[in-house]
Amino acid sequence: MGVRMNQALVLASESPRRRELLTQAGFDLTVCSAHVPEAESGDPRTLVLQNALAKANAVRTQYPDGMILGADTVVAVDGQVFGKPKDASDACRMLRLLSGRWHQVYTGVALIGPDGSPVTRCAVTDVHFVEMTQDEIATYISTGEPFDKAGAYAIQGRAGYFIDRISGSYSNVIGLPLATVREMMREYQASAMTDE
Amino acid sequence: MGVRMNQALVLASESPRRRELLTQAGFDLTVCSAHVPEAESGDPRTLVLQNALAKANAVRTQYPDGMILGADTVVAVDGQVFGKPKDASDACRMLRLLSGRWHQVYTGVALIGPDGSPVTRCAVTDVHFVEMTQDEIATYISTGEPFDKAGAYAIQGRAGYFIDRISGSYSNVIGLPLATVREMMREYQASAMTDE
Repeated sequence: MGVRMNQALVLASESPRRRELLTQAGFDLTVCSAHVPEAESGDPRTLVLQNALAKANAVRTQYPDGMILGADTVVAVDGQVFGKPKDASDACRMLRLLSGRWHQVYTGVALIGPDGSPVTRCAVTDVHFVEMTQDEIATYISTGEPFDKAGAYAIQGRAGYFIDRISGSYSNVIGLPLATVREMMREYQASAMTDE
Repeated sequence: MGVRMNQALVLASESPRRRELLTQAGFDLTVCSAHVPEAESGDPRTLVLQNALAKANAVRTQYPDGMILGADTVVAVDGQVFGKPKDASDACRMLRLLSGRWHQVYTGVALIGPDGSPVTRCAVTDVHFVEMTQDEIATYISTGEPFDKAGAYAIQGRAGYFIDRISGSYSNVIGLPLATVREMMREYQASAMTDE
């Protein structure tokens, strides 16, 4: 069974990066902001799955017949979870901690179909930053790029210059593991066919 | 010593992806097409380094005082080197061979500064494709995306949906390992300072 492109999907997320990733992957996308209080601390895997599910659930009443996708991404280093930085000094703190070492990016994905039963999955990617100089950190923050990104960086933006290697899904680091979404769509379709 | 952004660089390559990567990384870029006959077979590492150096060399007379960057990317699977596909059936052959397994992406980078001495480096990234269905391969080719890409795919485009993991530099898979460029720039600057 092949996954057809141009499948309809409701994205329960405001993230322009997720929108772009899914549009590039060929989905016919409806975007619906999910305003839910997000958990910000705890085990990263539990946290992102919980937030992803809460987002997908929040828009379900508006799209009862749709295929809804919710997602949440955090960065974790030594058990510390980084969401979006509060300000420049918070971004600086995060980037200093990420410099010259490996960290993990977690994205929780929740898919809810018309039958209401959710499929959830979490992807983890290891990311390595080169040792950034103070100047490089300051210059990077001055571009404004870190402010709306989990962990204060965008691999697809200027931070790509400081990331020498990753291990795992690349799109996960941007905010949505596309091959995981593909697997979930296939799983959902297979179970829907069994139910018929 | 920090690497300052907005450094001037002459890109000896027509690739819009390389231009975008370097611009996003903050370089002040001049693009100059290097029309050189490219080697297409042989050991991938030797091949990309040779082509990268030939491209950088080709534009040197036009920019004798510039910092010139040449690059070349190929995909290799089981010792077979894939450049850009010739047509749809060639793209189909490549994608079938890449499906459901790991392959390698090699990019050679050559940097020539005003003193004429080149710095070269090769980056290798392992890339894994999920098992694509025949439908998925056909649909992907019909988008036209594979035709001007080494190995017949673009990870930053629709092929991102079929790549579940990579190991190594991500920007290398797009066509230019940015952190390697950073290292080369630092190396060049350090040697220029020693010479003074």
